Amino acid sequence: MTLYTEIFEQPSILRNLLTNQRDTIAKIASEIRKRDASFVFLAARGTSDNAGRYANYLWGSYNSIPVALATPSLFTFYKKPPRLINALVVGVSQSGKSPDIVSVLKEGKNQGCLTLAITNDLKSPLASEADFVIDIHAGEEKAVAATKTYTAELLAMAMLSTALEKDKKREEELLKVPDWADKVLAQTDHIKEIAQRYLFMERCVVLGRGFNYSTAFEWSLKLKELTYVVAEPYSSADFQHGPIAMVERGFPVMAVAPGGAVFDTLTSMLVKLKKDHHAELLVISDQPSVLELAQSSIELPKGIPEWLTPLITIIPAQLFCYHLTQAKGYNTEAPRSIHKVTETQ
Amino acid sequence: MTLYTEIFEQPSILRNLLTNQRDTIAKIASEIRKRDASFVFLAARGTSDNAGRYANYLWGSYNSIPVALATPSLFTFYKKPPRLINALVVGVSQSGKSPDIVSVLKEGKNQGCLTLAITNDLKSPLASEADFVIDIHAGEEKAVAATKTYTAELLAMAMLSTALEKDKKREEELLKVPDWADKVLAQTDHIKEIAQRYLFMERCVVLGRGFNYSTAFEWSLKLKELTYVVAEPYSSADFQHGPIAMVERGFPVMAVAPGGAVFDTLTSMLVKLKKDHHAELLVISDQPSVLELAQSSIELPKGIPEWLTPLITIIPAQLFCYHLTQAKGYNTEAPRSIHKVTETQ
Repeated sequence: MTLYTEIFEQPSILRNLLTNQRDTIAKIASEIRKRDASFVFLAARGTSDNAGRYANYLWGSYNSIPVALATPSLFTFYKKPPRLINALVVGVSQSGKSPDIVSVLKEGKNQGCLTLAITNDLKSPLASEADFVIDIHAGEEKAVAATKTYTAELLAMAMLSTALEKDKKREEELLKVPDWADKVLAQTDHIKEIAQRYLFMERCVVLGRGFNYSTAFEWSLKLKELTYVVAEPYSSADFQHGPIAMVERGFPVMAVAPGGAVFDTLTSMLVKLKKDHHAELLVISDQPSVLELAQSSIELPKGIPEWLTPLITIIPAQLFCYHLTQAKGYNTEAPRSIHKVTETQ
Repeated sequence: MTLYTEIFEQPSILRNLLTNQRDTIAKIASEIRKRDASFVFLAARGTSDNAGRYANYLWGSYNSIPVALATPSLFTFYKKPPRLINALVVGVSQSGKSPDIVSVLKEGKNQGCLTLAITNDLKSPLASEADFVIDIHAGEEKAVAATKTYTAELLAMAMLSTALEKDKKREEELLKVPDWADKVLAQTDHIKEIAQRYLFMERCVVLGRGFNYSTAFEWSLKLKELTYVVAEPYSSADFQHGPIAMVERGFPVMAVAPGGAVFDTLTSMLVKLKKDHHAELLVISDQPSVLELAQSSIELPKGIPEWLTPLITIIPAQLFCYHLTQAKGYNTEAPRSIHKVTETQ
């Protein structure tokens, strides 16, 4: 099974990326520092857009730079792109082929902005258009559902973040990522067992907050692509502003809740969902209190700093989706209706 | 029924707002022009966040200014707000009370940015914090699900857009909004009839693109809050990048597809969903071709310029949600689990 193999390739891809893009990223960082952009304008779709949500929190907090997620139709259909003065324009795409993402970079270049592509294909139109390219070196991804290119994109973003600050402490933390990835992969049998419980699930919500807002989006995208479950991602704050009304007895709620700055607020929402609304909880965490609260739980290795948790928390979620797809009898390699490369305008 | 009454109050609120905030908005626009911000940093939650999505397209295209939607947790839990140099910081909130939105404005002010509040309460903490306030003058909104404050927020954003450019042509177009609103409200009986067909719907997707990306989000939020349907909003482009895999025979797809720059691309997606995937379509449009394609259709008045369609397209969607809630026998005034004012950190 290609999808399963690709999920398991992640530790070695991450290890490799840490070594072989280190110098390139250091050079790019020094160019970016020279330009001192006011904000990042980031264009991406699908899984890469979820990686962009990580950049939004990571670069916003550790590099103090606000990130605006692009609205590509202003560049393609409306032909009225905004002024991008003082922006660093970033395109993220596994294939580097989607015309809308390429147009945003092209317009950025026309307006004199520094442009950066993060892609798995150095020869792609996106890479050719950009001033700088980070090659995520994930090897060809054959399964339609992206897994290894997602974590590689996150790592590329994390490496750029530390390089921009020349932050030695965080650079050392980065080196531990592949080992943590190995540890969560070892739980595949436990996760397979959990997945059986969700065989008849047709809809759910996936909650995360802060850094793991990205994980909630990516987990829910994998659920939709692979298991065809209508899975909607939320920050626990946005969830309170209306959508919580959907939750009735037994309603399935997935949550990404590692320890950190948002742990208490997210957990108090989960306690409420369990005690007051009798929701069915599946939780990924390293914190015993919330793992005990949930009907199903997946334990993370201890000691992952919060800013790096999205690189690890998504892996058990990928495994969960893989095993649930198997249990439901669907095709893990080629989900219906979608293709590996999606070219949108 | 308060919700129903408030939906019908919209034309008069919009008429009123066009008159009584015109001068205030002109003054604010002239101050904003002086500062020449590189980008807008906009903080909002729930319905107001959906209004922010409209601003993203509107101000991005007609005022050439990129909009970054804020990540409030960086200001509250992480205490690591990004640098907001050269930003215009905007907070949008009906109640003006959510502490996370107030903190973003406060930080903007500390960093020396120009700050603007769009709110229904001039005495709220958000209004007190801001340099400038647009009062949406919608009167007290009693129903928990926001309707009239949403369209009033959109109109305030549209008025600011035309004032910034001193665009007389678009200012005249604005004046027709209340009449178009009257026209769609007159379809309430037709919409009630349509709603019966969706009595047993438990999940759906809502598609929109460009300006009406906001409408897709707001329609889906009303569905979740009022009818408890798991309704997920998408741009038709993002939908192709994975989630389309969920669609099987009879899967309900709601779409906001008025004529305009993105009409062809959205319609070709709807044709595909109907012909290849046998989806069940409910479409809001002024274009006969797509109205005929759908199993259920709601016709818009002719001649609404695309940039103003979100102020009108949401109204039949609100009526649809109201009638479906009635049909399902749920409480239209006070949905379970939520309150009028949600205070999140």
